[in-house]
Amino acid sequence: MKEIVIIGAGFGGLNAAKILAGNKDFNITILDKENHHLFKPLLYQVASAGLNESDIAYPIRSIFAKYKNVKVFKENVVDIDGESKKVITDSKIHQYDYLIIACGAVENYFKNTNWVNFAPPLQKLSHAQHLRNKILNAFEMAEKSKDEEERKKHLTFVIVGGGPTGVELAGAIGEITRITLTKEFRNIDPSLSRIILIEANNTILRSFDKKLIKKALRDLESLGVQVWTNSRVTDISGDYINIANETIKTSTIMWAAGTMANSLAEKINCDKDQMGKILVENDLSLNQFPDVYAVGDIVHFEQNGRVLPGLAPVAMQQGKYAAKVILKREAGKPYKPFKYRDKGQLATIGRSKAIAEIKRFKVSGTLAWITWLFVHILYLTGFKNRMLVMLQWAWSYFTFKKGARIIIDK
Amino acid sequence: MKEIVIIGAGFGGLNAAKILAGNKDFNITILDKENHHLFKPLLYQVASAGLNESDIAYPIRSIFAKYKNVKVFKENVVDIDGESKKVITDSKIHQYDYLIIACGAVENYFKNTNWVNFAPPLQKLSHAQHLRNKILNAFEMAEKSKDEEERKKHLTFVIVGGGPTGVELAGAIGEITRITLTKEFRNIDPSLSRIILIEANNTILRSFDKKLIKKALRDLESLGVQVWTNSRVTDISGDYINIANETIKTSTIMWAAGTMANSLAEKINCDKDQMGKILVENDLSLNQFPDVYAVGDIVHFEQNGRVLPGLAPVAMQQGKYAAKVILKREAGKPYKPFKYRDKGQLATIGRSKAIAEIKRFKVSGTLAWITWLFVHILYLTGFKNRMLVMLQWAWSYFTFKKGARIIIDK
Repeated sequence: MKEIVIIGAGFGGLNAAKILAGNKDFNITILDKENHHLFKPLLYQVASAGLNESDIAYPIRSIFAKYKNVKVFKENVVDIDGESKKVITDSKIHQYDYLIIACGAVENYFKNTNWVNFAPPLQKLSHAQHLRNKILNAFEMAEKSKDEEERKKHLTFVIVGGGPTGVELAGAIGEITRITLTKEFRNIDPSLSRIILIEANNTILRSFDKKLIKKALRDLESLGVQVWTNSRVTDISGDYINIANETIKTSTIMWAAGTMANSLAEKINCDKDQMGKILVENDLSLNQFPDVYAVGDIVHFEQNGRVLPGLAPVAMQQGKYAAKVILKREAGKPYKPFKYRDKGQLATIGRSKAIAEIKRFKVSGTLAWITWLFVHILYLTGFKNRMLVMLQWAWSYFTFKKGARIIIDK
Repeated sequence: MKEIVIIGAGFGGLNAAKILAGNKDFNITILDKENHHLFKPLLYQVASAGLNESDIAYPIRSIFAKYKNVKVFKENVVDIDGESKKVITDSKIHQYDYLIIACGAVENYFKNTNWVNFAPPLQKLSHAQHLRNKILNAFEMAEKSKDEEERKKHLTFVIVGGGPTGVELAGAIGEITRITLTKEFRNIDPSLSRIILIEANNTILRSFDKKLIKKALRDLESLGVQVWTNSRVTDISGDYINIANETIKTSTIMWAAGTMANSLAEKINCDKDQMGKILVENDLSLNQFPDVYAVGDIVHFEQNGRVLPGLAPVAMQQGKYAAKVILKREAGKPYKPFKYRDKGQLATIGRSKAIAEIKRFKVSGTLAWITWLFVHILYLTGFKNRMLVMLQWAWSYFTFKKGARIIIDK
């Protein structure tokens, strides 16, 4: 019996474990800080009050309940010893024959570590809940304030980072202000909220086709979002953000500006890029430790001269690949290098507003939006979740409401 | 235009506001610390991972969106001045012609204030989330622990208080341990968990018929819950609870042992009982301030020599009554004293296990459980919530799973 340890049950780790589960030659141990697999592409919907936490999260041990060779531990990994093949956690030491590192990426504040206090990130459920509280509270604060400047500050939402997450967040806030809340306040008009999407580069959604980007920009504007490109954040505080020499007063800043490798990558002695991501061999193994594989967002992998993006499909394919390579190695079979099969990319801006690029097929509007809906429901873990998400989206579509507008104060 | 201020949007305040909303002779101001009305009878289902937070919570301002004469503020009331008719909040002063105090009850630790840190209460959504984290984490801790004593401690759940909340919580944990989690762990057997329901009196569910109580006891036992009556808690700490001279090692203690008036009751100069609840006149007004009414759990009201219990129907009827009395007073019409119309009582223990007492009609088992289901769905606010709760219950019923088994760590 070989011992396989998998660190992280995101898209990479989960898909690796699914390949190995039930195979009687292996014991699989999954280690994760959380008790759930998180469907991160919909995390912004929790932050923007469209879905519940549990709609996009699924208990890891439920997924593997029927596979007796899979153990799941909610533990914090504190160290990895590649020489003696050990993973050290907060509660014990796990010996492995093969290790799959799949603990993903975390928010990157580019050394401005104190900004995290004022511009929270969106990487896990507690972040989404915190952001939702912040966004919904801003309207409550504005409604009860008597000071016009104060109100303006509360009704200004700044999103830093024009990748898919930033765009989706900005679009969702646009919908909340322009559609959902219009009739519910007496002292303020939420539809006058200022929503600003800040991007340091010269365009948002960089990886998309130029025509689609233009479409996304128009869609964002129709929801009241102003996009500021070539804009670099110079300072962030509790009630303002500085962009170069300009200052915007705001009580809600969201950080979607970039990621870097999980700090666990530092614990293993191997080559990394400047974001701390692990430089792997063409079979996703570490050149220093051939029995250690790394998959997903923690990996720096180049294909055709381009680094693979931090997307769910990349992590899923890499997770499956690493697991299959282990099976082939054990069976003494040959295997080919990892090759990412691009399934295309999608981004949604709001109801009936999305862009999709699937090979040469490029669409926007309702068709792209429906594609987006189906792809996301299809890949969501758990029948109940799929059913509930579909129902809540249908309900939101017909009522123009958001279903989870709950502030959970301590 | 008369100004009516309502403190609290629980069952009492909400129902008062619904009577007054849309009446052009009044401006209604609702003040609440939270942004949502909470359907408290199902709060234990959030704590026990059966439902989502937003399934049982509804934004207050959504309920009154179409009534322009209703204003909602998420504010903390800090003082009430009955002489000059003012409610002072953390952000401003609200002048009133009529005031309805409906801010309910809070957990009562009977002066052992530090117990709150070890035995959390269940009064609001953040409490439910905290309890859910605690309950689910206990199994995770047990699974990864190597020490048998430690495991036993993690697999011991103590609920203090044998009223409906305590019974429902104990039953729900019974179901989790005996049904939901049975196949998901490798190192522990959740079905061996010890669940102990502590009650200081000589019986649980005191207000019910003796035969029904017996049935509830058998139902609890069938789910692994042991009921300790005549048991008084003498000490509580992070990993034990003392009952008289006995000590139980446990990492999860829940407090459902009693309530007292919201501390806001202290701010108004009027007669109170020993729980701080307001002694009102027979029309629910305060004898010192005839334009101030108090309704719901903050009120001490005797009928036929018995104090009305802290139940949703009482609060709802009182809220409606107070609002109608104000309308009648303004119209110069006579009105009768408040009289509670007893609709009966219900408690659920688990799937197909409940007791119901509706006038002379006393049932238990599946029929009582179905009654319980329908009553709760009927009274839930919001069509979407009713639909989603029904679906999740149906899903849980057929799959034996709990739908919201998510630990949200900070």
